[in-house]
Amino acid sequence: MDVVVNAAMSADGKLSSRRREQIEISGPDDFDRVDRIRREVDAVAVGIGTVLADDPHLTLDDPDRQQQRRDQGRPANPARVVVDSRGRTPPEHRICDTAANTYVLVAAAAPEARRQALREAGAELIVAGDNRVDLPAAFAELEAAGIESLLVEGGGELIFSVIENDLIDRLTVYVGSLVIGGREAPTLADGDGFADGFPRLSLESVERVDDGVVLRYTVPAAE
Amino acid sequence: MDVVVNAAMSADGKLSSRRREQIEISGPDDFDRVDRIRREVDAVAVGIGTVLADDPHLTLDDPDRQQQRRDQGRPANPARVVVDSRGRTPPEHRICDTAANTYVLVAAAAPEARRQALREAGAELIVAGDNRVDLPAAFAELEAAGIESLLVEGGGELIFSVIENDLIDRLTVYVGSLVIGGREAPTLADGDGFADGFPRLSLESVERVDDGVVLRYTVPAAE
Repeated sequence: MDVVVNAAMSADGKLSSRRREQIEISGPDDFDRVDRIRREVDAVAVGIGTVLADDPHLTLDDPDRQQQRRDQGRPANPARVVVDSRGRTPPEHRICDTAANTYVLVAAAAPEARRQALREAGAELIVAGDNRVDLPAAFAELEAAGIESLLVEGGGELIFSVIENDLIDRLTVYVGSLVIGGREAPTLADGDGFADGFPRLSLESVERVDDGVVLRYTVPAAE
Repeated sequence: MDVVVNAAMSADGKLSSRRREQIEISGPDDFDRVDRIRREVDAVAVGIGTVLADDPHLTLDDPDRQQQRRDQGRPANPARVVVDSRGRTPPEHRICDTAANTYVLVAAAAPEARRQALREAGAELIVAGDNRVDLPAAFAELEAAGIESLLVEGGGELIFSVIENDLIDRLTVYVGSLVIGGREAPTLADGDGFADGFPRLSLESVERVDDGVVLRYTVPAAE
């Protein structure tokens, strides 16, 4: 499976403020750029923190792009994937609506009542791992279900896990021209962090978009 | 006083790992770029966290540049400034040696014994603020002492304070092609962070240096 991570951060590396409210980091040209990536992929993934904080829909903004996908014999929108160890995705959230297929990746520890509620809302559940989602196993199941390309949109906990598990092929970062600050604000890659053996990236392109810049990296396979 | 902040961060906005060890984020061309900035300025400032973690010297690497400064009738090295509310700078650290003048900015709460030890090591003390250094007042005293241009090199706590107090004129960020990760790793701008009224920057230039990229911003005066 081809995995690209795309996120917008402030000039100091934050995805949001310490309050975890959505902040307009990029602008219309960058939103359009992300919409174009969504048009191409089979699925878009976010972590449960992002679902709870932002209630994202993750569908295509542009109806022409939905039509282009239909013309290719694909669903109008990419499938949606939530990485959600304990099954906390609220079934009434937009990510569970009928606009696209939804996969919820849970761990074995997720309570059966929550799983059942998500299934009733139409989500497909993938169980992998005991207390936390086993990301390589879950991604392999997604691939077996026909997901050949995945866009990971955040947040920082999921992005770190994807990098830590060597599941990432490319990283695209929009660096917005603002400062958010805060030692507790979410960053592009949170989790426990690396203490050594920091993954090296290869900077493929630099492009000014809106009033910021898009940095595109490839991620060489770990040795 | 003209204040430029310069720092090197990973692609995810970190200055260091959660262990706060120094990490090679940039390369020789970026070190040389920073050395050129140091040649121009009257003083280089860091926070006490950086002094304790890294024991930086903050002098010019290139003897030709030291000679250029002497030829201009200036000290061979810029003065060094530590923002150090409680006077914790170890007098035996390199920043207190005789290679350049050293200013330690302390708050009134800094114990007299520590102040005395720093004075005996040759540092000039500036006292401003009660429990924490009053940065605008302390910077005004530096300016009165002849410091007309200041390079702030970090860490994230000092950089946030400089931005929060509207003391910054320009921000230069080297974005290195690696991921450090970690919700507790120091970032380019830590502190409490902004909750709204995020300072906007103006992106003036984008330049590829070593295997990363240098982003140069100006910071419009706060309204």
